[in-house]
Amino acid sequence: MTTHETYDVVILGSGPAGLQAGIHAARKNVRTLMLGRMDNSSLYWAHIENYCCQFKVSGEEVLNTGREQVEAFGGEFRDEDVLSIDPEGSLFSIRLESGDTVLSKTVILATGSSRNKLGVPGEKELLGKGVSYCVDCDAGFYRGQIVAVAGSRSAAAGGAVALTRFASEVHLYCDKLDVADGLRRQLDETGVVLHEGVQITEIRGETGVDAVALDDTTTRAVSGVFIELGAKGVLELTATLGVTLDESMKYIDTDKKQRTNIPGIFAAGDICGPPLQMAKAVGEGCVAGIEAANYAKKLTHGS
Amino acid sequence: MTTHETYDVVILGSGPAGLQAGIHAARKNVRTLMLGRMDNSSLYWAHIENYCCQFKVSGEEVLNTGREQVEAFGGEFRDEDVLSIDPEGSLFSIRLESGDTVLSKTVILATGSSRNKLGVPGEKELLGKGVSYCVDCDAGFYRGQIVAVAGSRSAAAGGAVALTRFASEVHLYCDKLDVADGLRRQLDETGVVLHEGVQITEIRGETGVDAVALDDTTTRAVSGVFIELGAKGVLELTATLGVTLDESMKYIDTDKKQRTNIPGIFAAGDICGPPLQMAKAVGEGCVAGIEAANYAKKLTHGS
Repeated sequence: MTTHETYDVVILGSGPAGLQAGIHAARKNVRTLMLGRMDNSSLYWAHIENYCCQFKVSGEEVLNTGREQVEAFGGEFRDEDVLSIDPEGSLFSIRLESGDTVLSKTVILATGSSRNKLGVPGEKELLGKGVSYCVDCDAGFYRGQIVAVAGSRSAAAGGAVALTRFASEVHLYCDKLDVADGLRRQLDETGVVLHEGVQITEIRGETGVDAVALDDTTTRAVSGVFIELGAKGVLELTATLGVTLDESMKYIDTDKKQRTNIPGIFAAGDICGPPLQMAKAVGEGCVAGIEAANYAKKLTHGS
Repeated sequence: MTTHETYDVVILGSGPAGLQAGIHAARKNVRTLMLGRMDNSSLYWAHIENYCCQFKVSGEEVLNTGREQVEAFGGEFRDEDVLSIDPEGSLFSIRLESGDTVLSKTVILATGSSRNKLGVPGEKELLGKGVSYCVDCDAGFYRGQIVAVAGSRSAAAGGAVALTRFASEVHLYCDKLDVADGLRRQLDETGVVLHEGVQITEIRGETGVDAVALDDTTTRAVSGVFIELGAKGVLELTATLGVTLDESMKYIDTDKKQRTNIPGIFAAGDICGPPLQMAKAVGEGCVAGIEAANYAKKLTHGS
């Protein structure tokens, strides 16, 4: 099933930056959709001490209150990750892991900073020599070759599917696959080899990746390893949009109104760089939510 | 009594921006002092709905939690307003309404936006023609003349004292004077005429201010009226420092690190302009607290 509902503001990420953006956008009476799974937020697992004015409360509790606020003001939620964002006329087309697509006048990127290291021997040494954190950036290098993908969520599963267009074999290693049915179906259809319950323990090679060692004591010869933990990261979601990164090439560059270089695309929170603090995230979310809602209204009514 | 304690970070204003700055500065183990009275914050009287992730709580409750957080991390509080900030070598000298002075390596301005209208007939019409919101800007125009001041706190009392150096008579109208003993003493010493319990109901004049009408049914001939409600505002505190305002001339201009044009002076919250939202205030407070603490450390240890 593919829906094509149109929103004024679609927010990727339902951590503090996304929730605060959702509160302010929804308060402005524009149609607002929040995407992403709450437990993707690093805050979900945290204990809060640094954030005014909540002391010694759990991240889960805080995020649930934020969701209640967004819903009270009329914002909608879909608990699934985003696979891609593409321009479509004056709108943006957002493909979800369920297979649905939604349209929006504006997009707020609030997916946090990637904590995407696998933490195994060889990962650091072979980075850029066969180890990659960005399928959309590097898939083309592996035409006709065998590759491994590590991760259990949308980034890994979506990445594995995308890699089948280039690689001869794609092996997906994960603890327990945790994606929507639509994406799980695509894994089957594209012939991704799923190794559920098997983890990569080492990446081997000298000048380039030769193989991965696995926790079932076997080894597989591969020439590339894609590490794709959690939801799709900033690098991949913005690759097709042309959103400019800052000098570190890790974070999105925004102005004080949280606008990126692409009209209609805003960003807020850890994705915009340090300090990676909840207070800074909600501050930027507030500004992004208000600015995106205003932008959507202008697009509707003319400026 | 005059103390000359030296701090790393002094924060003016203990609303959300100030508290969040205090939390982050204190967490960085620099000596941090919070100034200002909590009930100066517009939030103190508010009911919170818009701020992630606290729903339907009172401003007073929220601010008390924030204070508890700052104190838990080692930040100090003095519940009094600031009368002036002046450069003193590589430090800033901050004069308090009690008469004490403290020194600091950095200052964070977080005193909020001024809600300083008296709301009486003639106020708007005679603005700039005898009605002023800034003693430090306009006192010099009233040499040898009779002036009225409206307000019950440090801004009004301090302003009235300052005006005695120019005006021939200074009449201070307020509901109930609410200032520290040091400042109250100065009112006596400088000959300010205090009319406690008497309020200005109208400002009269055609091309300039001629008189004020009072709620005791009398009238007083004056040539200037200074409206100084609450704590000292941004315009007055920054006049001697040379801090640059933004284009609206109402708010302080900062970069993304919340730095003003004066090294060592930072600003955060409503004082930096819209959106005047708690979320944006804490976001800027977070950045200002961290940046000020880092600045103070560099000043101590060399960069």
